[in-house]
Amino acid sequence: MNGPNLNLLGQRETEIYGNLDFKTYLDSLRERYPEVRIDFFQSNMEGALIDKIHEAGFGKCDGIVLNAGAYTHTSIAIMDAIKAVSTPVVEVHISNIYQREEFRQRSMIARACKGVVTGFGLDSYRVAIEGLIG
Amino acid sequence: MNGPNLNLLGQRETEIYGNLDFKTYLDSLRERYPEVRIDFFQSNMEGALIDKIHEAGFGKCDGIVLNAGAYTHTSIAIMDAIKAVSTPVVEVHISNIYQREEFRQRSMIARACKGVVTGFGLDSYRVAIEGLIG
Amino acid sequence: MNGPNLNLLGQRETEIYGNLDFKTYLDSLRERYPEVRIDFFQSNMEGALIDKIHEAGFGKCDGIVLNAGAYTHTSIAIMDAIKAVSTPVVEVHISNIYQREEFRQRSMIARACKGVVTGFGLDSYRVAIEGLIG
Amino acid sequence: MNGPNLNLLGQRETEIYGNLDFKTYLDSLRERYPEVRIDFFQSNMEGALIDKIHEAGFGKCDGIVLNAGAYTHTSIAIMDAIKAVSTPVVEVHISNIYQREEFRQRSMIARACKGVVTGFGLDSYRVAIEGLIG
Amino acid sequence: MNGPNLNLLGQRETEIYGNLDFKTYLDSLRERYPEVRIDFFQSNMEGALIDKIHEAGFGKCDGIVLNAGAYTHTSIAIMDAIKAVSTPVVEVHISNIYQREEFRQRSMIARACKGVVTGFGLDSYRVAIEGLIG
Amino acid sequence: MNGPNLNLLGQRETEIYGNLDFKTYLDSLRERYPEVRIDFFQSNMEGALIDKIHEAGFGKCDGIVLNAGAYTHTSIAIMDAIKAVSTPVVEVHISNIYQREEFRQRSMIARACKGVVTGFGLDSYRVAIEGLIG
Amino acid sequence: MNGPNLNLLGQRETEIYGNLDFKTYLDSLRERYPEVRIDFFQSNMEGALIDKIHEAGFGKCDGIVLNAGAYTHTSIAIMDAIKAVSTPVVEVHISNIYQREEFRQRSMIARACKGVVTGFGLDSYRVAIEGLIG
Amino acid sequence: MNGPNLNLLGQRETEIYGNLDFKTYLDSLRERYPEVRIDFFQSNMEGALIDKIHEAGFGKCDGIVLNAGAYTHTSIAIMDAIKAVSTPVVEVHISNIYQREEFRQRSMIARACKGVVTGFGLDSYRVAIEGLIG
Amino acid sequence: MNGPNLNLLGQRETEIYGNLDFKTYLDSLRERYPEVRIDFFQSNMEGALIDKIHEAGFGKCDGIVLNAGAYTHTSIAIMDAIKAVSTPVVEVHISNIYQREEFRQRSMIARACKGVVTGFGLDSYRVAIEGLIG
Amino acid sequence: MNGPNLNLLGQRETEIYGNLDFKTYLDSLRERYPEVRIDFFQSNMEGALIDKIHEAGFGKCDGIVLNAGAYTHTSIAIMDAIKAVSTPVVEVHISNIYQREEFRQRSMIARACKGVVTGFGLDSYRVAIEGLIG
Amino acid sequence: MNGPNLNLLGQRETEIYGNLDFKTYLDSLRERYPEVRIDFFQSNMEGALIDKIHEAGFGKCDGIVLNAGAYTHTSIAIMDAIKAVSTPVVEVHISNIYQREEFRQRSMIARACKGVVTGFGLDSYRVAIEGLIG
Amino acid sequence: MNGPNLNLLGQRETEIYGNLDFKTYLDSLRERYPEVRIDFFQSNMEGALIDKIHEAGFGKCDGIVLNAGAYTHTSIAIMDAIKAVSTPVVEVHISNIYQREEFRQRSMIARACKGVVTGFGLDSYRVAIEGLIG
Repeated sequence: MNGPNLNLLGQRETEIYGNLDFKTYLDSLRERYPEVRIDFFQSNMEGALIDKIHEAGFGKCDGIVLNAGAYTHTSIAIMDAIKAVSTPVVEVHISNIYQREEFRQRSMIARACKGVVTGFGLDSYRVAIEGLIG
Repeated sequence: MNGPNLNLLGQRETEIYGNLDFKTYLDSLRERYPEVRIDFFQSNMEGALIDKIHEAGFGKCDGIVLNAGAYTHTSIAIMDAIKAVSTPVVEVHISNIYQREEFRQRSMIARACKGVVTGFGLDSYRVAIEGLIG
Repeated sequence: MNGPNLNLLGQRETEIYGNLDFKTYLDSLRERYPEVRIDFFQSNMEGALIDKIHEAGFGKCDGIVLNAGAYTHTSIAIMDAIKAVSTPVVEVHISNIYQREEFRQRSMIARACKGVVTGFGLDSYRVAIEGLIG
Repeated sequence: MNGPNLNLLGQRETEIYGNLDFKTYLDSLRERYPEVRIDFFQSNMEGALIDKIHEAGFGKCDGIVLNAGAYTHTSIAIMDAIKAVSTPVVEVHISNIYQREEFRQRSMIARACKGVVTGFGLDSYRVAIEGLIG
Repeated sequence: MNGPNLNLLGQRETEIYGNLDFKTYLDSLRERYPEVRIDFFQSNMEGALIDKIHEAGFGKCDGIVLNAGAYTHTSIAIMDAIKAVSTPVVEVHISNIYQREEFRQRSMIARACKGVVTGFGLDSYRVAIEGLIG
Repeated sequence: MNGPNLNLLGQRETEIYGNLDFKTYLDSLRERYPEVRIDFFQSNMEGALIDKIHEAGFGKCDGIVLNAGAYTHTSIAIMDAIKAVSTPVVEVHISNIYQREEFRQRSMIARACKGVVTGFGLDSYRVAIEGLIG
Repeated sequence: MNGPNLNLLGQRETEIYGNLDFKTYLDSLRERYPEVRIDFFQSNMEGALIDKIHEAGFGKCDGIVLNAGAYTHTSIAIMDAIKAVSTPVVEVHISNIYQREEFRQRSMIARACKGVVTGFGLDSYRVAIEGLIG
Repeated sequence: MNGPNLNLLGQRETEIYGNLDFKTYLDSLRERYPEVRIDFFQSNMEGALIDKIHEAGFGKCDGIVLNAGAYTHTSIAIMDAIKAVSTPVVEVHISNIYQREEFRQRSMIARACKGVVTGFGLDSYRVAIEGLIG
Repeated sequence: MNGPNLNLLGQRETEIYGNLDFKTYLDSLRERYPEVRIDFFQSNMEGALIDKIHEAGFGKCDGIVLNAGAYTHTSIAIMDAIKAVSTPVVEVHISNIYQREEFRQRSMIARACKGVVTGFGLDSYRVAIEGLIG
Repeated sequence: MNGPNLNLLGQRETEIYGNLDFKTYLDSLRERYPEVRIDFFQSNMEGALIDKIHEAGFGKCDGIVLNAGAYTHTSIAIMDAIKAVSTPVVEVHISNIYQREEFRQRSMIARACKGVVTGFGLDSYRVAIEGLIG
Repeated sequence: MNGPNLNLLGQRETEIYGNLDFKTYLDSLRERYPEVRIDFFQSNMEGALIDKIHEAGFGKCDGIVLNAGAYTHTSIAIMDAIKAVSTPVVEVHISNIYQREEFRQRSMIARACKGVVTGFGLDSYRVAIEGLIG
Repeated sequence: MNGPNLNLLGQRETEIYGNLDFKTYLDSLRERYPEVRIDFFQSNMEGALIDKIHEAGFGKCDGIVLNAGAYTHTSIAIMDAIKAVSTPVVEVHISNIYQREEFRQRSMIARACKGVVTGFGLDSYRVAIEGLIG
């Protein structure tokens, strides 16, 4: 699940985020983990992400890999949504947020997540899946 | 590489850290990743960890998985050591540090690391290896 | 009017919020206060709450009982919406927010409201209505 | 129970607190809630308020409506007194404290109370009683 | 482009924002700058503003005049959206935000903008256009 | 009017406060200003000081010279008492509080007073009277 | 000497403070240290504690064991009283205040005391006496 | 009116401020706005700027465009000078101060100005004039 | 001695500072205290005030009454100048600075002065003279 | 157990720490408490102290009296070591740390200790033993 | 180059700054370094120091030894002046500023200087010259 | 004496620290100052540096030039060690720490040192020696 501005992956600030198209990356993931069904959702709306977490959280999936983008740092509402569902959520970041601005180094949602994976580029999503499937 | 008090893994605060013996865990890792040579070092001394990072960093290994324990939150010197070597270092934590005390939620060394993996129990080490070997 | 995650009332964290279904509760309110017409709106979207406050605020109702959930603590935009309408708004919380995390103890919107009622469980909504009808 | 300077209600800063005499208001309350016995105590002394909470708290009443005035914001001792008794205490304020000075927006005692009612003028006391009797 | 609550311009808090209807103002702008094509968008949704910035930013316009309202002070996501597009964005405010509450004096999005214009009433939009067309 | 510990003037920390007996000093003041009637009150109780300010404030005197001692720095309740009465109050300090500990350099009550006089030793009381009688 | 709410020792929050009656404890102390005369004073009033410190401090005793309760953390006035007398004062706490809320971990009065003893349950008083008699 | 170090415009840190000579720029402004009389003053002295604001403020001009340079961030005295005169003052900055050091992002004087224009390079002065002449 | 913007006394913000001309006031002072020789100096320059304090401080006068205006709150240099001379300096303010903006409530120079007088209008200067002549 | 620089006791800053040799003091303790076996360890190394706490903590002793010196204020690692062992640890300080620099008034390790004793000179160690043996 | 109050060297606070006359000291420097031409400038005016840095910085000298006195801690304008010139500047202090008040321990200008020398008494100037001539 | 990571001088981050081998540099120093005996010690261990300061400090040398590396910013223990010995210590840094991260701009040990020299590259050590030998 991807948050705000991540619809631009591969187009925007490619020196930070790389220029790989996210769909292509998702396909490579599905190939590598054929035993895992991987659904995808992206929205720039905080509330739409919350709706989706509720939907996914009530029995429809075994784990959520969530890159909440900028909402990571400010959204108490997304944190509450994660807390409200029993599905484990892993927070991921493409870049190493500790090498960026001060305000990106604080995560509001991490306390509600099972774990956090940050800094491995797009590969962070795969590493997070590894963390979920054990 | 493990920092202070992690020699007690499996003995101490088992509700947080689990009661698996670390040696047993390492063996299971070596079995799962036979293509990777996994060395292990633990010390309660900040300076000894720095020495080891220097030693490991100058050509002797392809990556370091580092759980710096309490030094994670205070040691500028370990951060400098990581910066000084070219080997990629992944910071790991067994527990989700964002669910613990405020002072454990700030990492001094993360800004010098390639990435961070936190919250998967002992499995965090394996997930970090996944991040290193790609 | 209910904010983010409050669609899960009765399902989520029942040790904090109780397990009464909100619809059932609303019906009991309508029964107790037959002279008051009680409309209901819930959204996880900050902007949708603002739209509704505008709509309700311009002449369509005599008072708003608002549980803005997590947006209570961060939304300057909802505060501005409340200020912009002349209808009195009462901020309510089900739990006593002063017994929860630090970041839940600061209300951004309270300064624009007529009053605040917190800590009486679901009954907070009824108490707020008492405050509105005097 | 009323704290410091509230003996001047009706005389002091009437643009904030209104000019209704508190005794008159109490009588109107007793009339509206004939099934509730309402006792009244006011003191400018922090210690006297603590004494009274102890006295009231040990079995002599079913609930306390407390406007601790300026002590609301600073008194750890009153908070401890509330915690020490099992009688539920509701914190009230006549004005909306969130529209006043910064230092009036922090309540020290709220975390020990059952709930908080603020901003309904003198009617806040009645609303608090509603919260207590359910 | 206008953010939350700015749909009420001319109706709300007219002592701060004036009572000119925004459409009328836009028409006067189009008349004064016939060589410039001026499109208009308003939303109370943070995510909808981000969507629009993406849309406008990818080649469809030469500059954006953005009054992000309350989101100015909190939205990292809008800041990221502005950074992600190459179109220059000018932040505007109708009132002089430095004469208002402390929390309105910090702009989260300014660091991603080309420039900032504040305090000229509705005329701020025109002044911003001057800044864009040079 | 003197606050906590000022009953010890002339006995305590004489290198800061001098060793003149306060009664003797008061007599010298009465002699120098025969046209002014000077009453005196001291208490270590915050509430007793508030009671006295109410009493003095409602018509019984033309001005209050108040050395609130340690309560100067913490008492919102005394500040409220001063605000509640129309009699002008002058805050005085014997020592220059700006040469002492950080926490003595902040006055809670000054914002409610007419003026402040600090640093002239016992003579501060006389200087304050000069300020009151003009 | 005991401060606010400590009159409830043995009754209140017994999981923190134990359920031993303080009088019984005092008798056991007097028995163990027959060569020491032990007087006792408790008040919920800040000013009454100050009065007592003055009284005790001017020659009537060789040392004061003071549990100032909640006033420990806020009272500059009690700190001044301790400074003003020459009798050594030992600050005690029953619980380990460093394991409790943030605001209980700061002592305002410690800087004026000879020493501090904290965390030994009721036995803290005896340990403090050991510190006084050497 | 230009403040400290702005006499070096065109010579100093040209990657931030550009290398256009300020006199040349002023001439181009006078040409573009022939109906406006543009006077110029620069000083490195805080007091000299204050003197000039007084002089300009008392009837001699219809508006001041002020780039107070480094004094922008610290000078309460210049803010007071602006408040003291009735002539509208527009604060300008050549660079976008929100993209620079933290201490350059706070303006002390903005609260006394009519408006602020920042980030358009030298053109900021012209944009400010647009704001003044409407 | 008067600091920045005080040359405008009687002209500027007369609701705060009154509209009495300072020269007229000085003459009334000289008349009331014929035994005191009163010299006057005003400058908007921080350095000129320092020069004058040095000059006055080395033997030429018995006391300085200093209203440093806005420099009061920021100037370490003026504080050092006062410390460097042996002449006693009294800091004065016309308005009660504790009723104004936060940044006006901190005095940088007070710690070097003998005393402070604030809040008596222009009469503050006379009250300060009383403090100096005893 | 003594931390950094405490090997110099009796030599260094004797006005704070006294000039008694620590060995001599230990002998006097052993004499006074013949029923207690007292071992001693000192190191300037944070890690060596941790090693020793582990060693002592796992069954080899009934209590630890720990003066961690400067590490008291910064070492999360020592705090973790104390938490990891079941042996009760008493934190001691020779001087009253609340009369010293700000940074010495915060203890990092106290929250893991049973209790704290501070301010009785070398006698603090004996008082701590009293606290341990009850 | 010397800043505010340094014209009093040898006269003022001689326990901190020594009582050597600065001219005499300069002569001894010129004697010891005959190959270096040493010019001297002192002013109490922030702006005059900036003027001089510009003048010296544009080709007239190879290095500046600057003791900016109190302006060290507050002047962004002097920092900008140093940044604007290419001549290397060394910040010096006579006393060890880290042993003085908190506000003297922060240097605003150091970030623009080549290096800093502090604590060697008047000899700091000579040590700085050593740093410049290598 | 060199602290953590400085064993890598000439190898690590050469754009900051230069690439001169430290041994070579030491030899050049010994050649330039033949009358001074220069010993050298480096360790990554905080405790080992403390041990060495004790050893050097008790009569074995006339001065210590100390580059404590990252421990500069955090080590109260090293500061205490410096305070405990009478030998003067000069803190040095190769880079200008004021141009680096915020946390490198605060020195914990400077308050115990005689002086500080920073920013002259390796030459800082020589400049420090100049400061020691006068």
